[in-house]
Amino acid sequence: MSNIHDNAHSLEKAIRESEEFQNLKTAFETVMKNSETKQMFDEFRDTQIRLQEKQMQGLEITEEEIETARKVVEQVQANQDISTLMAEEQHVNELINEISRIITSPLEDLYGNPNNLN
Amino acid sequence: MSNIHDNAHSLEKAIRESEEFQNLKTAFETVMKNSETKQMFDEFRDTQIRLQEKQMQGLEITEEEIETARKVVEQVQANQDISTLMAEEQHVNELINEISRIITSPLEDLYGNPNNLN
Ligand SMILES: [Ca+2]
Ligand SMILES: [Ca+2]
Repeated sequence: MSNIHDNAHSLEKAIRESEEFQNLKTAFETVMKNSETKQMFDEFRDTQIRLQEKQMQGLEITEEEIETARKVVEQVQANQDISTLMAEEQHVNELINEISRIITSPLEDLYGNPNNLN
Repeated sequence: MSNIHDNAHSLEKAIRESEEFQNLKTAFETVMKNSETKQMFDEFRDTQIRLQEKQMQGLEITEEEIETARKVVEQVQANQDISTLMAEEQHVNELINEISRIITSPLEDLYGNPNNLN
């Protein structure tokens, strides 16, 4: 267990120091230090979270809400700093997903192929 | 990036060799090598997956389905080998969740506290 913790903390440090995370941090800071882009980005996330919550609860999403979401997405995509931030978020997500696939491979091996236990 | 990969693979190896994973593997093999418990466990998982899918799609779950699921759960809980397997799954899930919290802490630090960038 302490071996696992040591390894997890080494990995965390490597992620923190990675080009991907450092690029994300820079992009996030750029958006956050400008009150206009900060507000735009906050509105975008709030809209996303609200729609996801309704979807998860099985509630109907109105045409008006879809139209509002579409406009907010259009607005953030037109902004260079926010587009950059979203691209960097995507890079870090890919990195985390890749790590996740590696560390859950013992479970994948066990459950994915029950006839091939070793 | 190669540093991240090396660290992820070291962590994967530590998980694979952990007491938690080895206990899960033993419990899983015990259930799988007995055709009766294997069938019971497969039915339990199928039922769970079916209900989760309906829930995610916002489809109504009938009283009959709830009753069937309740019976299947009762049946597997009464079986010692499957109960053990479910407890070991829970231990490994807790381990993976803990690792997940550690390795996503750079993101938590960045997004969780935007006024405290460092
Ligand atoms: Ca990049
Ligand atoms: Ca245990």
